[in-house]
Amino acid sequence: MADPRYSILFEPVRIGPVTARNRFYQVPHCTGLGHLRPRADAATRAIKAEGGWAVVSNQETEIHPSSDLTPFPEHRLWDERDIPALRLMTERVHEHGALAAIELVHNGYHAANLGSRAPVLAPSDVALHTLVPKQARAMDKSDLRDLRRWHRAAALRAKEAGFDIVYCYAGHGMTIAQHFLSPLLNTRGDEYGGSLENRARLLRELVEDTKEAVGDTCAVALRFAVDEMQGVDGMQAHEEGRAVVELLSELPDLWDVNVSDWSNDSATSRFAPEEGYQTDYIRFVKEVTSRPVVGVGRFTSPDHMVSLVNKGVVDFIGAARPSIADPFLPAKVEEGRVEEIRECIGCNICVASDNMGVPIRCTQNPTMGEEWRRGWHPEKVARVANADEVLIVGGGPAGLECAMQFARAGAQVTLAEAGPELGGRARREAGLKGLGAWGRVRDYREHDLRQRANVNIYSESPLDADQVVELGIPHVFVASGATWRRDGIGRTSRRPISTAGDVAVFTPDDIMDGSVPPDGPVVIYDDDQIYMGGVLADHLRATGADVTLVTPAPVVSPWTEMTLEQVRIQRSLIEAGVEIVVGHSLVSVAAGVARLACVYSNGLRETACASLIMVTERVRETALFDALSGRGLETLELIGDAAQPGLIADAVYSGHAAFRAFGRSAEEVEAEMFRREVIEMGG
Amino acid sequence: MADPRYSILFEPVRIGPVTARNRFYQVPHCTGLGHLRPRADAATRAIKAEGGWAVVSNQETEIHPSSDLTPFPEHRLWDERDIPALRLMTERVHEHGALAAIELVHNGYHAANLGSRAPVLAPSDVALHTLVPKQARAMDKSDLRDLRRWHRAAALRAKEAGFDIVYCYAGHGMTIAQHFLSPLLNTRGDEYGGSLENRARLLRELVEDTKEAVGDTCAVALRFAVDEMQGVDGMQAHEEGRAVVELLSELPDLWDVNVSDWSNDSATSRFAPEEGYQTDYIRFVKEVTSRPVVGVGRFTSPDHMVSLVNKGVVDFIGAARPSIADPFLPAKVEEGRVEEIRECIGCNICVASDNMGVPIRCTQNPTMGEEWRRGWHPEKVARVANADEVLIVGGGPAGLECAMQFARAGAQVTLAEAGPELGGRARREAGLKGLGAWGRVRDYREHDLRQRANVNIYSESPLDADQVVELGIPHVFVASGATWRRDGIGRTSRRPISTAGDVAVFTPDDIMDGSVPPDGPVVIYDDDQIYMGGVLADHLRATGADVTLVTPAPVVSPWTEMTLEQVRIQRSLIEAGVEIVVGHSLVSVAAGVARLACVYSNGLRETACASLIMVTERVRETALFDALSGRGLETLELIGDAAQPGLIADAVYSGHAAFRAFGRSAEEVEAEMFRREVIEMGG
Repeated sequence: MADPRYSILFEPVRIGPVTARNRFYQVPHCTGLGHLRPRADAATRAIKAEGGWAVVSNQETEIHPSSDLTPFPEHRLWDERDIPALRLMTERVHEHGALAAIELVHNGYHAANLGSRAPVLAPSDVALHTLVPKQARAMDKSDLRDLRRWHRAAALRAKEAGFDIVYCYAGHGMTIAQHFLSPLLNTRGDEYGGSLENRARLLRELVEDTKEAVGDTCAVALRFAVDEMQGVDGMQAHEEGRAVVELLSELPDLWDVNVSDWSNDSATSRFAPEEGYQTDYIRFVKEVTSRPVVGVGRFTSPDHMVSLVNKGVVDFIGAARPSIADPFLPAKVEEGRVEEIRECIGCNICVASDNMGVPIRCTQNPTMGEEWRRGWHPEKVARVANADEVLIVGGGPAGLECAMQFARAGAQVTLAEAGPELGGRARREAGLKGLGAWGRVRDYREHDLRQRANVNIYSESPLDADQVVELGIPHVFVASGATWRRDGIGRTSRRPISTAGDVAVFTPDDIMDGSVPPDGPVVIYDDDQIYMGGVLADHLRATGADVTLVTPAPVVSPWTEMTLEQVRIQRSLIEAGVEIVVGHSLVSVAAGVARLACVYSNGLRETACASLIMVTERVRETALFDALSGRGLETLELIGDAAQPGLIADAVYSGHAAFRAFGRSAEEVEAEMFRREVIEMGG
Repeated sequence: MADPRYSILFEPVRIGPVTARNRFYQVPHCTGLGHLRPRADAATRAIKAEGGWAVVSNQETEIHPSSDLTPFPEHRLWDERDIPALRLMTERVHEHGALAAIELVHNGYHAANLGSRAPVLAPSDVALHTLVPKQARAMDKSDLRDLRRWHRAAALRAKEAGFDIVYCYAGHGMTIAQHFLSPLLNTRGDEYGGSLENRARLLRELVEDTKEAVGDTCAVALRFAVDEMQGVDGMQAHEEGRAVVELLSELPDLWDVNVSDWSNDSATSRFAPEEGYQTDYIRFVKEVTSRPVVGVGRFTSPDHMVSLVNKGVVDFIGAARPSIADPFLPAKVEEGRVEEIRECIGCNICVASDNMGVPIRCTQNPTMGEEWRRGWHPEKVARVANADEVLIVGGGPAGLECAMQFARAGAQVTLAEAGPELGGRARREAGLKGLGAWGRVRDYREHDLRQRANVNIYSESPLDADQVVELGIPHVFVASGATWRRDGIGRTSRRPISTAGDVAVFTPDDIMDGSVPPDGPVVIYDDDQIYMGGVLADHLRATGADVTLVTPAPVVSPWTEMTLEQVRIQRSLIEAGVEIVVGHSLVSVAAGVARLACVYSNGLRETACASLIMVTERVRETALFDALSGRGLETLELIGDAAQPGLIADAVYSGHAAFRAFGRSAEEVEAEMFRREVIEMGG
C-alpha cells in the first residue's frame, strides 16, 4: 500500500558503524519520566520504535553528579548503577528493529547540582542559568581533564547499556560544550578561549574521545545549535554556526542540527505556525559535511519531508513533537495511511510536562506517557464486547476522542452535537488569533469518524434527558463542556466582582461566538492566568480594539512559562499596543471605569473601561448528566470539561480514559492510578 | 548537669495511649527527601530522636493518588508498597526512644495529581491552588465516603509501619479538611456546608474514623491552623478558630495548633524577628481543651519555653526549624549546655529546599539532609590524626565553620581574619535591615571557638603568601570570600554597563561597609535577583533615601518566592515608598539619568539617578590561594564564596565539607557525591 512518492523516506541510511532502516529519526526529547520512571520511559520509547522510527533517542543523560538536574527527572548515567534502567529502553527499542540513541550531557552552569552539591562548572565564573542563588566557577585544566574522563566513561557505560548511537551535545543553551563556544560565557585566556578554534576545542575533544571510546560499534552524533537567535550576542548560522560545522565537519558520524534556546527549537504553532521553520537556518549544513544530517521543524507532511530530502537539506527527518503526537507516523506513511496521521498541534503541552517535572502529556495523543502505567497503545484498542451501542453527547475534544475510540473498537456509535459543527472548544479556540493549528484536534477525529460505517453523527441535535432515554442506547457519555464565568470568581477571588450596567461584560465564550465589544476601551481581566487572557488580548487588539489586560499575576499568562511562550506573548502584546497592568486585582467596574487594587499594597488605581472581558473560571455544564441520573442507563458518565475543566489535553485524555474503562471493573481501572515506580528498598 | 530551671521541660507527657518522654516535639515538616529518598529521610529523623526530641514527626503523607503532589517528594502511603520506606523511619526513631508521628494528608485542590491524573477534589468547584491549568470538582457524597475510607486505610497502614501518633491535618491552606472549613471554598448546600458545624463535619469524621481505626495503640493528633491571617476572609483565632477547637475539644488526643498559610506559620526572622510570634493566636486553645497542646514559633530559648509551659500556653514545645538548625537542642538543654544551642536564624533555606523539590538544607546546620548520604552527624566528628595544625585564612561563615570543626576534632587551629571582627558576610549582612538574626551564624561559631584552648584567633591579620608559608602550618584553608562586582555584569547581562563619572556607583559591599550614597535619587539595579537587592532597598529607604529598585525580573527578589517572603518584600517596599521598576534592564547611567530597557520590547525609559547600587554578581577573591599554589603546603584548599559564591548556607557547608574530607582519599570523598537512592529495578 506504500505510496511510491514516499519511498525515498524509507531508504536505509548508514550512520558510521550502524544503519538506520529509514529516514525517520526521533531526536532526543525529554519525557518527565527519566531516571525516576525508567519503565514508563522505556515503554514510551518502545512504542516509537514499533511505530516505525528508525532511530529512537532518549533524553539528556547526566554523565556525572556535577551535572545534576535534580529535581527534574531527565536520564542519568553517573555510574554502573544507572545502566539497568537505560538497558530497559535499548532492549525494547531493539525488539522493534530501531536504533537506540543516548544523549550524553554535561549541563555546566545550567545544572544547579541541588542534590549532589557538586561544584557548578562553567568556562568562566557566572551566575547560574536558572534562578538559583549560586555562581558557577571557571574550570581549570584539571576540571577539563575530569570532564573528558567522565564523558568518555559515560560513553562506555552507554555502550554497555546497549545504545547504538552516542551523542555529544552542544545545544539548547543547556550544555557545557555550547557554553564554551560562546564568547560571552567563555572569557578564558587559555587554549580553550579566544578564537573559535579554541572555544570549539572542548567540543572537538568530546567528539574525538567518544569516537575513540565507542566508535568501533556505536555511531557518534553531534547535536549542535547552529543559531542562538540572539543576533550578534550569540551563535549565528551564517557566521560561527557555519564555521563550527566546517571545523568539525567529518568528525562526528552524524550532525543533528537545530536552533537554540529551547523556546526557539520547540517554537509553538502560535509563534511559528508553519512546519519547517528551522530549515533556513540549517540548510547550509549539508554543504559542508558529507555526514548524514538530521533537522527538525515540527514536520508532519510527508510531501514536505520528501522535498527536504530531495533538495539535500537533510538526510533524516528529525522529530520530537510529531513523534509524540503520533508515534506511528512513519508506519502510516509507509502503509499509505497518510490521512491517519495525528498531527502535532504545536501547543507544547509535552514541553510543559517536562518543565513541571512531571510525566509527559500530549494534546493529540492521550496515550503518551501512559504506555507502561496504564498499558495504553496509541493505535491498538481491544474490541468492545457484543458491538455495544454507545451514545456520546457533545462533539468537543472529549466527546470526539471517546466516540472515535469506541468506533475503532467496533461499537455502534451515536455522536450528538447541539451546535452546527463538531469540535467544541477545539474548534472555537482555533478561531482565535494564533491558535489555528489547535483545530487539528477536531480535524483528525472528525475525519476518522466520518470514514466509519458504525458511526452516526448528528449535529444541531441538542438532547434533553427524555430524548436520550427514548433513544434506548444503554451506554451514554456526556461531554457537555464548561462555560466561562461572568461573575469574576477566579483563581484569586472567591467573591463575585461588582459590575454596573453601563459596562458590557463579556466572557471568552462570547468572543469565540463572535460578539464584538462596543467602541471604547476594552479591559480583559485575566484571573485564569493560563493562556486565554493573552490570546484574547492579541485577538481583540488585532481587530483594532483599545485593549488593557489586567491580571493579579506578575506577568501576562504566567502559566505559559511552562510552554516556553511567556516572553513571546508579553513582547507581542506590548508591540501590538496592548496596555498591560500586572499585579492588580479587579475590584469593581462602573461608570466607564475599572477600579484595580495592587495585589501587594492594596493601592487603588483606575483604568477606562467601556467593556470588560472576564477570563476567570469555568462552570461545568452538568444539567443533562444530572437529569439522566437514576434514569436506568447501563452506563452514564460525565467526561471532559464537564467533569473537570482543564486543558484540551485533559479533555481528550478524559474521553480516552472513559473508553478504556468501559466494561471493566472499577477496581481494575482504579488500580492503574496506583501504578508507579518506587525507590529500591533492598539491602 | 541539668539546670533545675528547665526540669519542667523534661517531664513525660501522656498523649492518649502513648507517652512522650519530655516536652520537645518536632512537629511535621517537609524535607525534600520523602518518598524519593526514604533512607535519607529516615536518617534525618533518627538524628532528631537521638538529639532528645520526644516526638519526631514525618511530613505530609499522601493517602491516595487523588492527593498526588508530584513532582514534590513529600511522603506517600497510597498502599502497602509504601510501608517499607516509612518503616525505615519508625524503626530508627524508636531506637532512640522517641515517638514517631505521621502526618496523613489529603491535599484536595492543593494537589494537582500530575502523576496519577486522578480527579482533583474540593468542597466546591474551584481553580487549583497552584498555577496548574485545571479546576477541582466538588465532591459528592460518594467521594466523601471514599475519602474517609482512604484516610482510615492509610491510618491502618501507618500503624503497621510502626507510627505511634497519627495526624489528621487541617492546616497551611493545603489540606482538604481545612478547605471544607472555609466558607469561601465551601459553598455546599448539604450537611457538609453552611454552618460551622457542617463545615467541620468532615474534619470531625476524619478524627473519629482515625481514633476508631488505630486509637487503641496510636495517639490521634489534630493539626489545625487557628488563624489564616486573612481577616474576615479566613479563619480567625478569636472567631471560628476558637469555635472549631470548642467543637472538637476532647476528640483528638493532641492539638497541634499554628497559623496559616505556610508563609505565616514559617515566617522568617526578616518579618517576624521574635520567637513566639504565634503565641497570641494559639494561647486560647488550652482554655477549651484538656488535651495536650503543641505550639510553634521558632523557639530556641529554654527560658521562653519554660515560661510557655508554666503559663499554660502549651504542653509541648513544638519546633520544625529550630530542630533543623539543632537536632540536639533538647539534649543540650537537658545537659546544661544551653549556650551550645545552634539557633535557627529564621532564613527559610530549609523551606526553600522543599519548595524547589530538593533535599533539605540549613544555614546553621550543614549536616542537615546529609546524615545518610555523607554520613554526617551534627555533633560528632572523628578526631583528626596527630593533632594536626591547620590554618584558616578568613573568618567568614566558611572559615568559622571549618575552624570550629577542626577545633572540635582536636586539631591545633589558627584562624586569621584580615578585618577587626569575625563573621565575614554573616556579620556584614546582619547589619542590614531585617537580617539581624543572621548574625547567629557568627555568634554560635565564635562563641564555640573562643572557649577552646586549641584555637588561636587573630583579627586584623591580613596575610600574604610569604607570611602564610613562614607560619609553617602544613594545612591551609583559604576562605577569602567574594566581592560584589561594580561593572554591571550579572545574571542577564554578560557585558559591562556604561556608567559616567557624575553618578556614584556603589556595590552592596560599600553599603555594608558604611558608605552613604549622596543626596539625590538612588537607583538599585538588581540583576542578582536573590535577596540582596530588596534588602538594600529597604535598608536605604529606612535612612530616608529616595530609592528606585530596577530589576529585569518580573517581581522584586524573585528567588525569595522559595523562602515564602516575596510578597511580603514587595509589599513592604511599596509601603515604604520605594519606587519599583520590574522587567527592565539597566542600559547606561549618565548625567543623572539611568536608561532602562524593557526586557520584553526593548522599549526605553529613564529614571533620575544620582547614585547607583549595582547588585549583580560577585568576584571570587583567590589572590592568596593562587599565590600559595606550588608553595609546598601539604593541604591548600579554597573554601566558601572564594571557591563558589552562593548563600551563607553554601559557605558554611563548604567549610564543613573541607573539614570532613581532611585526611581522606579523594576517591573516598568523591564517592559520597554519587550516593543516591534509585528506582527499584527488580521483577
